[in-house]
Amino acid sequence: MEKKKAVVILSGGMDSTTLLYLVNKKYDTHCISFDYGQKHKKELHHAKATCEKLGVKHKIVDLKVLSDVAPSALTRDDIKIPEGHYADENMKETVVPNRNMVMLSIATSYAISIKADKLFYGAHSGDHDIYPDCRKVFYSAIKTAIMLSDWHEVELDAPFIDFDKGDIAILGKALDVDYALTWTCYNGREKACGKCGACTERLEAFEKAGIVDPLVYE
Amino acid sequence: MEKKKAVVILSGGMDSTTLLYLVNKKYDTHCISFDYGQKHKKELHHAKATCEKLGVKHKIVDLKVLSDVAPSALTRDDIKIPEGHYADENMKETVVPNRNMVMLSIATSYAISIKADKLFYGAHSGDHDIYPDCRKVFYSAIKTAIMLSDWHEVELDAPFIDFDKGDIAILGKALDVDYALTWTCYNGREKACGKCGACTERLEAFEKAGIVDPLVYE
Repeated sequence: MEKKKAVVILSGGMDSTTLLYLVNKKYDTHCISFDYGQKHKKELHHAKATCEKLGVKHKIVDLKVLSDVAPSALTRDDIKIPEGHYADENMKETVVPNRNMVMLSIATSYAISIKADKLFYGAHSGDHDIYPDCRKVFYSAIKTAIMLSDWHEVELDAPFIDFDKGDIAILGKALDVDYALTWTCYNGREKACGKCGACTERLEAFEKAGIVDPLVYE
Repeated sequence: MEKKKAVVILSGGMDSTTLLYLVNKKYDTHCISFDYGQKHKKELHHAKATCEKLGVKHKIVDLKVLSDVAPSALTRDDIKIPEGHYADENMKETVVPNRNMVMLSIATSYAISIKADKLFYGAHSGDHDIYPDCRKVFYSAIKTAIMLSDWHEVELDAPFIDFDKGDIAILGKALDVDYALTWTCYNGREKACGKCGACTERLEAFEKAGIVDPLVYE
């Protein structure tokens, strides 16, 4: 039987890469990534490398206009990436306003255009407090809007919505995800900084899963 | 008292231009337009001219990537614009999949970024049958998603959702809208064709309102 088509929004980080491994077991998978001017461009190279390794189609969409429409520390050289754990105050500057809806809406256009039945994204519970567009209430509303946006129905699915990053790493271990081809650090330097909120969470997740992070840290 | 800020999605057509005149009476208005590779680029020049005339801020976002992600007759030279009245079959090729959600999501990023309270768009009842993302059910779902997408709440408003194009023209007459600075034709030629679905509907609307269309037709 022919596999159904699915689109996965792949950032190149550990969450969406684990999601891709999961979805690819069952669906004819097409990945979409976004270059929204993020300083950590490296994640896009890793996204590409993972798609090549798994032999899935990959489209990178140039969304650099977003940094002009809505500036953020993630995209602008004049705003510094904060250090420390994720917490409302110090990480707020990394919020790209409404980034998820923008990526989801373009990914939906793509899914409709290739007649995919499903659209997957890697929102998880650890993101809820700081990123409003990772909350379950947002997910539920946008899922409805996506379903209604075209005569061809696309079903949005966020299977990690109740997972934390540690749960994702545990699943990734079982799926034999190659985490050397993922990138999490918000700074775009040669090695991961190990200090920003993103690095801190990643390291905690690997510890919970009992696996060694293959990345080299500064 | 200082006016509240509002963002208007302005295509340069008669619906969104009428909307701009309406919103601008009450709000500190910021317009956003999208260059998604539409053949009828002229509408963007008209959008710019209207904003200059009214002295409102105007941002044009380059969204030409959309025609690569999801091809349509509106954006691709290799797909011809159909003639005749709007009807499911002949106009389906002009649907840019999920275009409204893409524009609404980027406009929301912009609204959040400038701390606007309201976001207006010109969806009306005449569009419902052919464009699924102009239906009231879609509007209601995306309104909820937009409200939840950030800690700064943006309220989506589509005041023409129960209007037909004739009602809009009647309102525009009362608001003294300069319709010479609007463009509706889907073909990007010097003069409006008068034959495509968009022209046909515009001409019917002006007739209903009892005003003479200032545009010159082929």
